[in-house]
Amino acid sequence: MSEKRPLITLTTDFGEADYFVAAMKGAINCVNPAAEIVDITHLIPAHDVYTAAFTLMCCYRDFPKNTIHVVVVDPGVGSSRRPIMAMTDDYNFIGPDNGVFSYVYQREQINRVVCFTAEHYFRQPVSNTFHGRDVFAPCAGYVSKLIDWRMMGNEVSDPVRFNTPTPTVVSEKLIRGTVIHVDRFGNLITNITSNELTEQLVRAGARVKVGTHEAARVLTHFAEANQNELFAYFGSAGFLEVAVPRQSAARVVEGRRGTEIEVVVP
Amino acid sequence: MSEKRPLITLTTDFGEADYFVAAMKGAINCVNPAAEIVDITHLIPAHDVYTAAFTLMCCYRDFPKNTIHVVVVDPGVGSSRRPIMAMTDDYNFIGPDNGVFSYVYQREQINRVVCFTAEHYFRQPVSNTFHGRDVFAPCAGYVSKLIDWRMMGNEVSDPVRFNTPTPTVVSEKLIRGTVIHVDRFGNLITNITSNELTEQLVRAGARVKVGTHEAARVLTHFAEANQNELFAYFGSAGFLEVAVPRQSAARVVEGRRGTEIEVVVP
Amino acid sequence: MSEKRPLITLTTDFGEADYFVAAMKGAINCVNPAAEIVDITHLIPAHDVYTAAFTLMCCYRDFPKNTIHVVVVDPGVGSSRRPIMAMTDDYNFIGPDNGVFSYVYQREQINRVVCFTAEHYFRQPVSNTFHGRDVFAPCAGYVSKLIDWRMMGNEVSDPVRFNTPTPTVVSEKLIRGTVIHVDRFGNLITNITSNELTEQLVRAGARVKVGTHEAARVLTHFAEANQNELFAYFGSAGFLEVAVPRQSAARVVEGRRGTEIEVVVP
Repeated sequence: MSEKRPLITLTTDFGEADYFVAAMKGAINCVNPAAEIVDITHLIPAHDVYTAAFTLMCCYRDFPKNTIHVVVVDPGVGSSRRPIMAMTDDYNFIGPDNGVFSYVYQREQINRVVCFTAEHYFRQPVSNTFHGRDVFAPCAGYVSKLIDWRMMGNEVSDPVRFNTPTPTVVSEKLIRGTVIHVDRFGNLITNITSNELTEQLVRAGARVKVGTHEAARVLTHFAEANQNELFAYFGSAGFLEVAVPRQSAARVVEGRRGTEIEVVVP
Repeated sequence: MSEKRPLITLTTDFGEADYFVAAMKGAINCVNPAAEIVDITHLIPAHDVYTAAFTLMCCYRDFPKNTIHVVVVDPGVGSSRRPIMAMTDDYNFIGPDNGVFSYVYQREQINRVVCFTAEHYFRQPVSNTFHGRDVFAPCAGYVSKLIDWRMMGNEVSDPVRFNTPTPTVVSEKLIRGTVIHVDRFGNLITNITSNELTEQLVRAGARVKVGTHEAARVLTHFAEANQNELFAYFGSAGFLEVAVPRQSAARVVEGRRGTEIEVVVP
Repeated sequence: MSEKRPLITLTTDFGEADYFVAAMKGAINCVNPAAEIVDITHLIPAHDVYTAAFTLMCCYRDFPKNTIHVVVVDPGVGSSRRPIMAMTDDYNFIGPDNGVFSYVYQREQINRVVCFTAEHYFRQPVSNTFHGRDVFAPCAGYVSKLIDWRMMGNEVSDPVRFNTPTPTVVSEKLIRGTVIHVDRFGNLITNITSNELTEQLVRAGARVKVGTHEAARVLTHFAEANQNELFAYFGSAGFLEVAVPRQSAARVVEGRRGTEIEVVVP
């Protein structure tokens, strides 16, 4: 019972109907049969590096130390974009160098970013269209076997990162943010955290505006809200979210990723 | 090869596109890396406690003794609804106290129902919106490590249960039931079992009416049915089901959960 | 870390919303708790033996030697169709005898095909509608425990196979093929391989025609293509595919399984 198998998570846009995810799992198993594989999701919208980055951000810290997080949302597959591994004290992040680890770079102390170059760690022959199976899966397998990164590639100093959307504190009474994600329940996740919308501002009666709609209250949980009430709360990932109990707020306010949000304090 | 890892199953309405399920798996792994996790489904319709209860009922007995079944369909998250564990000789059932274990209460000898109160077994801080990750997953992890329930909470005597739909035997020649589930193939699962519709009644030529449609035969398997024939059979979960070979009976008869069924014996 | 658990893969048309897949996993676990289960997909279109056969073909070789591949797309369940196991030096393939292993028969040296007849290896009672749980899962569990096939059934000489679609080399300048699959990204996978469309023909400027549309170039990876360009390439499963960067080629050319393809060399 005390055995601890190395954990590898997978986040991709491969969907669940094709053989792609299974091929990655087979490739990992060929390298390290002891690895335990956990799916984060394979339903990232095709080529949507931003949603992949967001989804990873929300849960990578929920996994035990030494977990290897593999993300394959890879519109540049086959081109010269680099296959990389970002290493922190707690986790290794493996995926294409296309910004998918931007939130990780922002939030973690990165020890180094490695570009995988040692092709004998790849599945041969390497296809031009499926590095998930041919590069990222086997490399994750070898990393889970504690192969030294110096054997697998070279350190790089300029990984690609995108600007993670940041809210603007316009004044003591106005914060501007955006919706960064819409979840399965239609809840709108904004980029505003308790750093901007402090408990003091909530107590002062902060209201959250989405287009012509307004959430008059920032509550602590769903059951506090009235039927049909648009309300705000801090969600499980630490962000201010806007919801309607048992309904899709996204539908009610016609919100989507990129929709602007205003927090107004009276 | 003789190693037996503790099994934990997950049934939720979290969908497969977000990070929710992965966060639960990470949280379980943080507590007990030896636990083996099996997904039952994460596509329970949002907040649909009835479908969750039905789905669990259909398969919990297929798992080995000592499996821990975790169900998180939890519209009352953050309110005062209790996090509970129903314990039988063979299984432990963990989830919110909202009736989701009603079929289990009906079918099993329950040794006790425990309310988890010892917060040091929870992930800290406990969010108000995601007890799947913060309460149910870590508690399942500790239960899988054989922590005594007395350390984790208190026995409760009044768990919430809903009335599981029961068929009515109106007369020797008439049984009234309802559709309790529609599966992926469009088959209509009713609440009628072989207790009501006995082999004798089947042999006497029982017919199954759904609205204006009628299944003239109760068959033993699909291949016996003719093309386009609406027919009935006892399904793999022990219930009378109505189907059309290679078509969706739900579409053919416009049936859904709650649709009334009559079994008529000539 | 050196432990190697027996691997069982599952490919079904059971979907992900019902309890069917979980019941299979429970049944496997009851027989062999040491087995490791990997999902290939459960989203094979209902009863679509051809897509199941294609999906399996694309990834079975990515798994380690001794993997057991279970496929349950089984429109004939309950009838006299046989439950079989096709055995090669590297893999065992378990499923209904309905042609789902046709590509395997074509590509592998088959040592024997066994029909499972020893019912004490089945889950009892065997339902008429769910052999995935009652026959295939437990048999896979026993095979993973290295039970001798002679204990489980009899060799058969006439497994069902369908004609796998083969391209026609009409002349040195014309190859006729068909679309055999459309993947999640809308890429059209054809049955043409580099055996027919040789590197020499590619260099000679081969063009791929789909209806009134034409892919003027056979490229090596996506990033080479221009925006909105319909192009062809050899995909990760070894087949010629037709795609448009970041768009669905299936939508652009209105292609689907069975759509005819012509490769023309100028």
